Amino acid sequence: MKQREISAAVIRRLPRYYRYLGELLQNDVVRISSKELSNRMRVTASQIRQDLNNFGGFGQQGYGYNVEYLHSEIGKILGLDVQHNMIIIGAGNLGQALANYNFEKVGFNLIGIFDTNPRLKGVSVRGIEIYMMDMLDEFVATHQVDVVTLTVPKRQAVEIGHHLEEIGIRAIWNFAPTDLNVSEDVCVKNVHLNESLMTLSYEYRAMHTQDEESGRD
Amino acid sequence: MKQREISAAVIRRLPRYYRYLGELLQNDVVRISSKELSNRMRVTASQIRQDLNNFGGFGQQGYGYNVEYLHSEIGKILGLDVQHNMIIIGAGNLGQALANYNFEKVGFNLIGIFDTNPRLKGVSVRGIEIYMMDMLDEFVATHQVDVVTLTVPKRQAVEIGHHLEEIGIRAIWNFAPTDLNVSEDVCVKNVHLNESLMTLSYEYRAMHTQDEESGRD
Repeated sequence: MKQREISAAVIRRLPRYYRYLGELLQNDVVRISSKELSNRMRVTASQIRQDLNNFGGFGQQGYGYNVEYLHSEIGKILGLDVQHNMIIIGAGNLGQALANYNFEKVGFNLIGIFDTNPRLKGVSVRGIEIYMMDMLDEFVATHQVDVVTLTVPKRQAVEIGHHLEEIGIRAIWNFAPTDLNVSEDVCVKNVHLNESLMTLSYEYRAMHTQDEESGRD
Repeated sequence: MKQREISAAVIRRLPRYYRYLGELLQNDVVRISSKELSNRMRVTASQIRQDLNNFGGFGQQGYGYNVEYLHSEIGKILGLDVQHNMIIIGAGNLGQALANYNFEKVGFNLIGIFDTNPRLKGVSVRGIEIYMMDMLDEFVATHQVDVVTLTVPKRQAVEIGHHLEEIGIRAIWNFAPTDLNVSEDVCVKNVHLNESLMTLSYEYRAMHTQDEESGRD
């Protein structure tokens, strides 16, 4: 399938479609109308039709969407039909928690974990060994590493980011609370937990302020 | 300060401004022009001016922004001037990793951790005790709980979400890979790690496809 230019907003919504379709598939649902999908996902049917029309004619008038086909096509668009090798740099609490995640089911195979803490040397998480950072360059030179998950403290993250770019890494999943400032040749996806919590705080406060204001009327 | 209606896109960018201004403050920077801030943050100066104009006249022509004042005002807008009490439900790898985070510095105090696993009963993380889930209702009735961080498996998350709404919780930071389907009276902020990884996968694939295509020319 030939892809057109797709807006970032649509791309952000695709994983959620993929998740819902995956659940339908697990429940042996063969087809679904945009109306049904809309009710489940709490978005408008017209939004769903618009979004999915970006990828050609999945839906058929009077039939709806074929769940398995749509799930598989969205998976391909997201690149989930290809296996990716991932390493984690930073085996602290968060790094180890992520190492225990089952990202394999979305196509990401964890093949190594790195840290500078000598007490972690040779320790394994889910059968995957923690290596010391001085092994990183050799490891990357001798293994296909597609994605690096970065769970190091802020003060080390920028430097490590630059080094990763130098040794040829082109995708970083960054949990350090800082911008990496690598070049545009490197895909970076930030997960800034503090900032996520701040937007929750904003919404919570905005709701409370409304309550107080309407209480005053 | 009276707040106008502010778009969701601006709100999403505020924590990043807050972070940069906090770093400037730590480095004893007193004022900054929108041009300098723009260079550091890699967004246009006009974007910065537009965003910050939502909150009134922070900037002064020829002076720029007063870092401390702007940092503090954005903090207030985000609700960070108020302390929030947080509990974590789900003391698995991720829940324990989050319990070890220092969310206190953005105003979120962890006051309890809950799980159903009897082996975790009485275990402490950073001095905070893990309670069994049958203690939750009493805990919420006797403590001010503003935010619940939900790090339970998908199959339990929806049910727990409904229960949290019933016992009066109004803000949930949800890490379970599912939508909670609580009412609109509850603020939910989702951190769907799998989906974040999928969008990274998409961008990585899109970049590679471009490379291959230009290589073919």
